[in-house]
Amino acid sequence: MFDLIIRNGRLVTAAEVLPAGLDLGIKGEKIAYIGLPVPGTGDVPIIDAEGAYVTPGGIDSHVHIDQGNHPTSDKWEHASKSAIAGGTTTVLAFSQQKRSETTLYTSLDQYHAKASGNSYCDYGFHLILANPTEHVLTKELPAFVEQEGITSVKLYMTYDHLKLSDGELLDVMMVTRGLGMTTMIHAENHDMVSMVVKRLEANGRGDPFHHSIARPQLVENEATYRIISLAELTDTPILIVHMSAETAVKHVRESQARLLPVHAETCPHYLFLRSDSLAKPDFGGAKYVCSPPLRHQQSDLDAMWQAITNGTFTTFSSDHCPDKHDHPRGKKKGLDAKGKSNFKSIPNGLPGVETRLPLLFNEAGHDPDHRLTLPRFVQLTSTNPAKLYGLADRKGSLSPGLDADIVIWYPSGHKLSDASEELTITNSMLHHSCDYTPFEGFTVSNWPRKVLLRGQLVWDQEQGGIQGHQDYGQFLKRGRSSIVTGRTGLVPQGMAQGETNLWRGP
Amino acid sequence: MFDLIIRNGRLVTAAEVLPAGLDLGIKGEKIAYIGLPVPGTGDVPIIDAEGAYVTPGGIDSHVHIDQGNHPTSDKWEHASKSAIAGGTTTVLAFSQQKRSETTLYTSLDQYHAKASGNSYCDYGFHLILANPTEHVLTKELPAFVEQEGITSVKLYMTYDHLKLSDGELLDVMMVTRGLGMTTMIHAENHDMVSMVVKRLEANGRGDPFHHSIARPQLVENEATYRIISLAELTDTPILIVHMSAETAVKHVRESQARLLPVHAETCPHYLFLRSDSLAKPDFGGAKYVCSPPLRHQQSDLDAMWQAITNGTFTTFSSDHCPDKHDHPRGKKKGLDAKGKSNFKSIPNGLPGVETRLPLLFNEAGHDPDHRLTLPRFVQLTSTNPAKLYGLADRKGSLSPGLDADIVIWYPSGHKLSDASEELTITNSMLHHSCDYTPFEGFTVSNWPRKVLLRGQLVWDQEQGGIQGHQDYGQFLKRGRSSIVTGRTGLVPQGMAQGETNLWRGP
Amino acid sequence: MFDLIIRNGRLVTAAEVLPAGLDLGIKGEKIAYIGLPVPGTGDVPIIDAEGAYVTPGGIDSHVHIDQGNHPTSDKWEHASKSAIAGGTTTVLAFSQQKRSETTLYTSLDQYHAKASGNSYCDYGFHLILANPTEHVLTKELPAFVEQEGITSVKLYMTYDHLKLSDGELLDVMMVTRGLGMTTMIHAENHDMVSMVVKRLEANGRGDPFHHSIARPQLVENEATYRIISLAELTDTPILIVHMSAETAVKHVRESQARLLPVHAETCPHYLFLRSDSLAKPDFGGAKYVCSPPLRHQQSDLDAMWQAITNGTFTTFSSDHCPDKHDHPRGKKKGLDAKGKSNFKSIPNGLPGVETRLPLLFNEAGHDPDHRLTLPRFVQLTSTNPAKLYGLADRKGSLSPGLDADIVIWYPSGHKLSDASEELTITNSMLHHSCDYTPFEGFTVSNWPRKVLLRGQLVWDQEQGGIQGHQDYGQFLKRGRSSIVTGRTGLVPQGMAQGETNLWRGP
Amino acid sequence: MFDLIIRNGRLVTAAEVLPAGLDLGIKGEKIAYIGLPVPGTGDVPIIDAEGAYVTPGGIDSHVHIDQGNHPTSDKWEHASKSAIAGGTTTVLAFSQQKRSETTLYTSLDQYHAKASGNSYCDYGFHLILANPTEHVLTKELPAFVEQEGITSVKLYMTYDHLKLSDGELLDVMMVTRGLGMTTMIHAENHDMVSMVVKRLEANGRGDPFHHSIARPQLVENEATYRIISLAELTDTPILIVHMSAETAVKHVRESQARLLPVHAETCPHYLFLRSDSLAKPDFGGAKYVCSPPLRHQQSDLDAMWQAITNGTFTTFSSDHCPDKHDHPRGKKKGLDAKGKSNFKSIPNGLPGVETRLPLLFNEAGHDPDHRLTLPRFVQLTSTNPAKLYGLADRKGSLSPGLDADIVIWYPSGHKLSDASEELTITNSMLHHSCDYTPFEGFTVSNWPRKVLLRGQLVWDQEQGGIQGHQDYGQFLKRGRSSIVTGRTGLVPQGMAQGETNLWRGP
Repeated sequence: MFDLIIRNGRLVTAAEVLPAGLDLGIKGEKIAYIGLPVPGTGDVPIIDAEGAYVTPGGIDSHVHIDQGNHPTSDKWEHASKSAIAGGTTTVLAFSQQKRSETTLYTSLDQYHAKASGNSYCDYGFHLILANPTEHVLTKELPAFVEQEGITSVKLYMTYDHLKLSDGELLDVMMVTRGLGMTTMIHAENHDMVSMVVKRLEANGRGDPFHHSIARPQLVENEATYRIISLAELTDTPILIVHMSAETAVKHVRESQARLLPVHAETCPHYLFLRSDSLAKPDFGGAKYVCSPPLRHQQSDLDAMWQAITNGTFTTFSSDHCPDKHDHPRGKKKGLDAKGKSNFKSIPNGLPGVETRLPLLFNEAGHDPDHRLTLPRFVQLTSTNPAKLYGLADRKGSLSPGLDADIVIWYPSGHKLSDASEELTITNSMLHHSCDYTPFEGFTVSNWPRKVLLRGQLVWDQEQGGIQGHQDYGQFLKRGRSSIVTGRTGLVPQGMAQGETNLWRGP
Repeated sequence: MFDLIIRNGRLVTAAEVLPAGLDLGIKGEKIAYIGLPVPGTGDVPIIDAEGAYVTPGGIDSHVHIDQGNHPTSDKWEHASKSAIAGGTTTVLAFSQQKRSETTLYTSLDQYHAKASGNSYCDYGFHLILANPTEHVLTKELPAFVEQEGITSVKLYMTYDHLKLSDGELLDVMMVTRGLGMTTMIHAENHDMVSMVVKRLEANGRGDPFHHSIARPQLVENEATYRIISLAELTDTPILIVHMSAETAVKHVRESQARLLPVHAETCPHYLFLRSDSLAKPDFGGAKYVCSPPLRHQQSDLDAMWQAITNGTFTTFSSDHCPDKHDHPRGKKKGLDAKGKSNFKSIPNGLPGVETRLPLLFNEAGHDPDHRLTLPRFVQLTSTNPAKLYGLADRKGSLSPGLDADIVIWYPSGHKLSDASEELTITNSMLHHSCDYTPFEGFTVSNWPRKVLLRGQLVWDQEQGGIQGHQDYGQFLKRGRSSIVTGRTGLVPQGMAQGETNLWRGP
Repeated sequence: MFDLIIRNGRLVTAAEVLPAGLDLGIKGEKIAYIGLPVPGTGDVPIIDAEGAYVTPGGIDSHVHIDQGNHPTSDKWEHASKSAIAGGTTTVLAFSQQKRSETTLYTSLDQYHAKASGNSYCDYGFHLILANPTEHVLTKELPAFVEQEGITSVKLYMTYDHLKLSDGELLDVMMVTRGLGMTTMIHAENHDMVSMVVKRLEANGRGDPFHHSIARPQLVENEATYRIISLAELTDTPILIVHMSAETAVKHVRESQARLLPVHAETCPHYLFLRSDSLAKPDFGGAKYVCSPPLRHQQSDLDAMWQAITNGTFTTFSSDHCPDKHDHPRGKKKGLDAKGKSNFKSIPNGLPGVETRLPLLFNEAGHDPDHRLTLPRFVQLTSTNPAKLYGLADRKGSLSPGLDADIVIWYPSGHKLSDASEELTITNSMLHHSCDYTPFEGFTVSNWPRKVLLRGQLVWDQEQGGIQGHQDYGQFLKRGRSSIVTGRTGLVPQGMAQGETNLWRGP
Repeated sequence: MFDLIIRNGRLVTAAEVLPAGLDLGIKGEKIAYIGLPVPGTGDVPIIDAEGAYVTPGGIDSHVHIDQGNHPTSDKWEHASKSAIAGGTTTVLAFSQQKRSETTLYTSLDQYHAKASGNSYCDYGFHLILANPTEHVLTKELPAFVEQEGITSVKLYMTYDHLKLSDGELLDVMMVTRGLGMTTMIHAENHDMVSMVVKRLEANGRGDPFHHSIARPQLVENEATYRIISLAELTDTPILIVHMSAETAVKHVRESQARLLPVHAETCPHYLFLRSDSLAKPDFGGAKYVCSPPLRHQQSDLDAMWQAITNGTFTTFSSDHCPDKHDHPRGKKKGLDAKGKSNFKSIPNGLPGVETRLPLLFNEAGHDPDHRLTLPRFVQLTSTNPAKLYGLADRKGSLSPGLDADIVIWYPSGHKLSDASEELTITNSMLHHSCDYTPFEGFTVSNWPRKVLLRGQLVWDQEQGGIQGHQDYGQFLKRGRSSIVTGRTGLVPQGMAQGETNLWRGP
C-alpha cells in the first residue's frame, strides 16, 4: 500500500504542528497519507522520526546558478548538491536575457542546457528581462506561460546592463498582470547609487566597505516606494526581492494593509550579518559584497527580523550567488595589478543555498526566545514560495497528493557532533564550489538529518550525506501564482470618479 | 478500520486547500486519516462531498447564553442548536461574576448548571471579572487554570456594573500573564460615553439611533490605545473583542508590527450593517442596539473588511447576545409606559451564532471579488480561536488526531432553494429563540449541508436539519493559549537602561 | 520727516496683528516708522485706514509670463497690471532654457528684454533648466548667483521637453546646494502619465476631463516621495511647486518633521476648484486643464486646506499661466479641424495672478469659521516667498527699513458694490489679457483698496484703479534664501557609521 | 517725545529679524516706536545695542512659587528676582486648590497675598483644580474670567492628591471650552505609575534612579493620547505641559495636522539632561527627580529638539519648582533616619526660571549648527505664551503699543568673563534660594545684558545686576487666549451623520 512510512515525527504545516504520533505514508513520488499509525504495514520501510520535526522540502526561489557574468559561480552540479544537503529540494534559478538579445529563447536554451541532467534537485527558471521588446512582451511571454511552464519574470531598477526605466517597467507589468505572471523586482535607485559611486571614486574610496556606503537604505526606500506606486497604478502583483531596509519594509507593510498585491522577500545575510564584515582585512571584506549591501546597525537587522515575525515577508530565500574569493575573475576582480581595490569591480553576491534552512530553523520554535514559529518557518521557506510561483499543486506542503519532498530534522538536543549539541558551520562541510561561506563559524542547533525528494532519499546526514543523483532533478513546469489577496476593484487614489480603468483593460 | 469516510471534498486548512480527491477517515470521535482514497473500505459509511469544500467545525469564541442580565436571552438548548445549524460545533460562553460576589465560583456553578446536559455543541466558559479581589486573583484564578480548564478572562472598560479601573486592569493582567490566561477586553471609554449620554438625555434624545451617537469611534479608539499600553507595560497577551473602529484597528495593527501580543476580533454586524438600521421606525432600531454601535459609513465597514483580509483580526465571532424585541424585558425595556424611548434601557446585543459562518463563507474564495480566501476563513472561524483559547490539541483543524468536528458545504452552484442558488435568511429558519435576526433578507450562496461533532452527524440540511441531541455537547477543559508571537525580551520604550523588569517578576 | 503716513490700520505681520491706532510712516521708497501716532506731521499726506487691515504687498513667486510655448499668454504689461490690481507687488517669473540650448544666457536675455520697461510691478526670474550641462552647472550658475541676482532654479520631473532624469536632478542639486540656490520641483512621474495617456488615446478618450484621469494623485505621490529622497541624499533644500495630492503632502509633512529641508507650495485652484469643471460642455473643460490636474473630491481640496492651516505649505502662489480659450493657438489647440478633442494638445495652465490674494484673504481672520489667521495669510503670500527666494532684505514684511510695498484692504463690512458687501468676480473686471477666469462668479468679501509699491500708489480701487506705470517695476537682484531649518549634521538613514559625507563635500 | 531709545540692535520678532540700524523708542511703560533713527532726540537717554539682538521679555508660563506642598521652595522675592536676572519679565504661577476645599477663592487669596508686593516681575496665576465641584465650575470659573483676569486652569492625570478621573476632566473641559479658558494638562497615567511603584518598592528599589524607571515613556504616551481624545470629543483647546516622550509628541503632531486644538510645552531639562544624573552618588540623584522623569537616551532628547525645531511645541517653559537638596523637608525628605532612600518621598521638581532663556538662546541663530532660529526662540519663550494665555494685548512682542518688556543681549563674541566668551553656569551666580542648579557647569555664549520691564531697567549685568524692586511687579489680569486654529466645524470621527453636537451646545 505504501512504499515508505515516516513515523512519529511532528509534522509541520504552514498553519500548525500536527499532533504527535502520526504516520506519513509515501506511495511512489507522492505523499499518500497522513494519519493515525497504520496497522499491519508489514515490510514497508519505516523511518522513525520520533521527537523530531518533519517539514516540507525547502523551496529556494532565488538562486543564481552558472550565470554568465559570474564565471567563478557554482555550476548546477555543485549548487544543486548544496541545496539538498541543506534541505532544499527545489530551486528557482534565473535565465538571463542579454540587453543585446531581442528574444528570451536564446538565453533560456542556454540555461536549460546547463541545468538539464546536472541537478540533484528539482528546479525552474525565472526570466530576467533586460530588453523587453514588443515582441518579447506580446509574443514570447504568453508562450512561456502556456508552453514552457515559466510564469515569473525578474526586473531590475539598477545595474547598467539590466536596469529598466519606469516606462519599461510599466510596459512589462501591464503584460505580466494580464498573463498572471509573478513579477520580481530588484529595487534600488540606480541614479542615486551612480552619483554616490562617482564621488566616492573621485575621493579614492574604492575599498569594499564603501560599497555599503554607496548604496544607503535611502536608495532602497525610494525604489521600493516607486515600484509599489507602479504596481498600484497597474494593479500588478509584485514581489520585491532581498529587502534590507526598515523604511522600505514599512512601505511594503503599509501597502499590504491597503490590500495592494505587494509581496516581499528577505535573505539570511540581512538577518545575520552587518556591514562591519565588509571592513575585514586583506580584502576579506569583498566576501561580503552584495546588493543591497549588508546594513550597519543591529537595529537594522532587528527590523528585518520583525518583518519575518509579523508576517510582512512572504518568502525567505538565499539569493545564492557565489563567486570565488581567491580568484582573479571572482571577488579579486576588484583588486587591480597594484593591489588597489575598486569595489565597483567586485562581483556582487554571497553563497547561501545550503545554510539557508538551518540558519532560520535555528531561530524557530515555540519558546519565548524563538524568533518565529515552526509554521511560519514552513510558510517562508516552502509553502509561500510554492504558492507565489505556481508550484502549489505539487510542492510546498506536507499534504497528501503532493510530491513527497520532506526534511526530517534531529530531535531537539541531539548531539550534532562528538562534543556538542550544536554544529559549527565551516566552508569545508558545504557542497558548493565556492571557497568561503559568509557564515563561517556560526553555530546552529540542528541540521537536516534526512531529505527526500519525490519519495527518494537524497540526503542522509548519518549515512554519508548525499544519496541523490546528478540527473534526478526535474525541470518544473509551473502554473500561475495562487496567492490571491481577496481584494476587489481597487482603483488608484482619487479616481473614484469617471472611467478609471480604461488603461487596464478587461 | 474507519467508522466514516468523507470522500472527494476539498479539505480546507488554515494554510491551504488540499488537492481534490482525498479521503478523510474518521475513527470514533477523531479524524484518523487524510490521504489518497482508501481501497477496500467495504461497508464503511461514506459521505460523498464531491465538488464541495470541507472545513473544520466552527468555533464561536464569543457568545452570551442565558446571562443573568438578559432575561429574554436564549437558553442553552436554543443557542447551541442554533450554533450547530450554522456549522459551529464549539462555543465559548461567559460565566459572569457579579460585582457583589467575592468569588468566581458562585457564578461558575450557576453557569455550569445551566449548560450541563442542555447543549447540542461542545462548550467552554470565559470568566467575566467584575470584582477582582486579591483572593480571586491569587487563589482562584490559578485553580481555574489547573483544575477547571478555564483559561481565559474577560474584562470591561465600560458599563457601570462591570467597568474596571486602569489599576484593576493592571492587577488582573499581572496575574493572567503569569498564569498564561488569555485576557479579553471590551474597549470603550466609559466616562466619555457617560458624558455624552448625560447630555443627550438632557436634550431629550433617547431614541435608539442616539445610542450610536453616544458611543463614537473616538471612544473605542481611546480605550484601544489605552489597553494596548497596559498590555505593553505588563507584557500581557490580550484580545480586544468586537472591534468596529478604523483608527482603533490601526492601533492594533501598529502594535502587531512591533510584535506586541495584541489580538483582535470583529463580528458579522460590523461587516454587514450600518447605523441607519438604528433609525428604523416603530422602535425597530432597538433590534440593532449593541456596543460598540453599528458605524455610520460604508467606508467604516470597508475598514473592517480590510482588517479581515490583511490579517489584523485574529478571530471572527458572533457576539451572539439575543434579546427578544417584542418583550417588555427585552428590547422594549427601552420604551416607557408612555411609549417614550430611552436608549439607555435597551439591552445591548444582537443574535448571530447561526448566521456567522454562512455570512462570511459567502465572501470567501479565490476569485478577485472574494473578500477573503478559504484558508483565511478557516483561520478566523476555527483554527485561531482554537489556538488562542487553548483548544488546539482537540479542535480547530482538519488534522488527524483531532476531534472530527467538520462542516461539509454544498458544491458551488448547488440549488439551495427551489428557485435559486441563493438562500434568503429569515428568522423563521433559525433555531435561536429570539424573535428577529438583524440579517433578515440577506442572501447567501451556501449553507452548512452536514455538520459533524466528534464524528457524529449533528446537522443535515437535507435530512430535516438537527440530528444531534441536547445532551451530546461536552464541557471542554481548555489548556493555555498556543499562539506565540516569537518576540523576545521586549521592554517598554525608553527602558533599555537600568533594571527594568523588576515588576514583572520571573 | 515722512512722505506719507498710513494711519489707524491694523498692521499684519507674519507673526501678529499689531495693536490698533498705529501710524506707518513712509520715507522715499521705504517704510520708515511704525508706532504711536506722530504728532505735528503738518502737511504729510495721510491715508486713513481705520478699521482696515494692512498687509505687505503680495509676492507671487510662481507666474508664467510670455513664455515661448504659450503664444496666447499675457505679455508683461497685462500680467503685471493684473498683479498690482490684485495686491501683488512682486512677481517671480521664469526664464526657460530650451533643451537645444547649451547656455542659460540665451533665454535669460530674451526674458529680460520682454520684461524690461514693461512691468507695473517689481519682478525677478527663476531659471528653468532643460539642459543642465557641465558648463551650465559649474560656470553659469555661480555667475547667476554672484552677478545676476538670480538664485533659484526650477526642475521638471515630467513633460517631454523639460523632464530631467534622476541622475540629472542629482547633478543639479549637488550644485545648487553648494551655491545656496533654491531648487523648485515640478513633481509628477512622467512615465506613469505617458503610459496612461497612451492607453486613453487608444481608447479614444481625448476630452479634457480625461486629462485629469491621466494624471492621478499616485503620479504626484510617487514623484514627491522620490524628490524628497533625492533631497535627503544630497541634503538640498527644495520647494515642491503646485501640490495637489493628499498623500504627497503627507510625505512633505513627514519630511519636515524629520527636519529635512523640504518646502511646498499650493495654488488657488487646488483649494477652490474640482475636476467636474473639466467636464463642462462646449470644450469649456479646457479652461481648467492644468498639471497637476484639479482633483475629484471635496475631501481632496480639504486636505490642501488642512495643509494651508497646519503649516505644511510654505508658499501660496498663483501658477498664473494664461492661455486664451477661444483661440486656435490657445486652449483650442486641443480641438482638431473636425472638432475632435485631444487633451494632449491643450496648453496647460490657468490665469490667477490677480485673484490670488482676494480669494485667500476671504478665508482669513480670527473667527472659528475662518480657514487661516491673518498672520498665516501674510506668511503664505508675502513673507515666506521673500525669505525663500532671497528677498527678505527688501520685501515681504511691514518692517521699517524694507520697501514700502503695502496693501490696504477695506474695513470689514464695507460695501464693495452698490448692492452688496460682496464682490462677484468676473473676467471683465480683471486686467490680464486672457479671455476667461476659472473663478468666474466666485464672490469675495474684500479686495485691495489701495496698493503701494516702493511708496508709490499703484492701485486705488476707488480712484479708477491702476495708478502705476508700465516702466515703474524693477528687476530684483536677489540674494540667497534665508529660510534655515535649524538642522545639524543629518546623515541619510543607516549611515551613522563610516565616512558618509564624502560625496557632499565641504 | 520718548523716554528712552534702544538704538542699533537687531530686533527680533516671532516672524523675523528686523533690519539693522533701527531705533526702538519707549514712552512711559510702552514701546512707542520702531523705525529709522530719530533725528534730534536731544537728551533722551539712549542704550546702544549695536551688534546685539534685542528680544521681547521672556514669559515663563509654568513656574511653581511658594506652593504649599513645597516648604523649601522659593518665595516670590527670590523666584521673581531669579526670573528677571534671566531675562524673564513675566511669570505665570499656580494657585493650587486643595482637594478638601470646595472653592477656588481660599487658595487664590493665599497665593495673591504671597505674591502681592513681593515680585520683581509681572505675574499671573493659573488655577489648579483638585476638586471641580459643580459650584466651582458653574459659578466660580465664569467669575474668574470676567472679574479676576484668570483665564487658565491646570488639571492633573496623576498624583493622588490632584488626579482627576476622565469624567472629571470632561466636566471641566466642557466648562472651560465654553468660557474660552486655556486648559493645561499634566499627562501621565496614574495607575500605571502606581502599579510599577508598588512593585519596585516590594523589590527594595527606592533609590532616585528608580523614580525614572517608575514613569516610563509609555505612561506619558498613553495619557497624552487619552487627553487628546477627550479634547477631540469636547472640542476643547488644551496645552499639554512638560512633554518628554517621543511617541507622545508624535500624537500631538498628528493631532495638530488634523487641526485639533492641541498645544504642547517642553522644558529645558528634557532638552539638556538625561536620567544618568539620577544615579549620582550621595543622594545627588535626588536633585534631578521630577515628573515626567529625565529620559534615558540622547535620542530621546533629540526627539524633543526635533519638536522644538519643527514647530510642534507651542511654548518652552521652565517648570521652575525648586526644593532645596540639603534640607530634611526638601529633597532629603526621601531619605529616612537610617539613610535609606525612598523615591516616593522626594519632592518632584527642578529650579530653572533663571537659566531658561540663556540655555535656549545658546542654541538659536542662523548657522546650520543652530538648533532653532531667533524668531522661533521668540515664539517659544514669549510670543506664544502671551497669545496662549491671553496676554497678547500687552506682552510678548516688540510691537509699538505693547509693554516695553525687553531683553538686550550681548553682541556675538563679547567676552562674558575675564577669560572667555562663554559663561559657566554655577549656582552661586543665580538668584533663586535653591541650593543647587541642575545645570551646574553648563556653558552658554550669552546672557541677558539689560532687561527692561514696562520701560524700567530691572537688570543690568554690567551694573551690578538687579536694578528692579520687589514691589514693582504687577498682577496681570489676562484675557482669553488668542491662538486660533483656523478650523471649522470638525466633528468627532464617525459622526458625520445625525445630530452630533447636541452635547456641546451653543
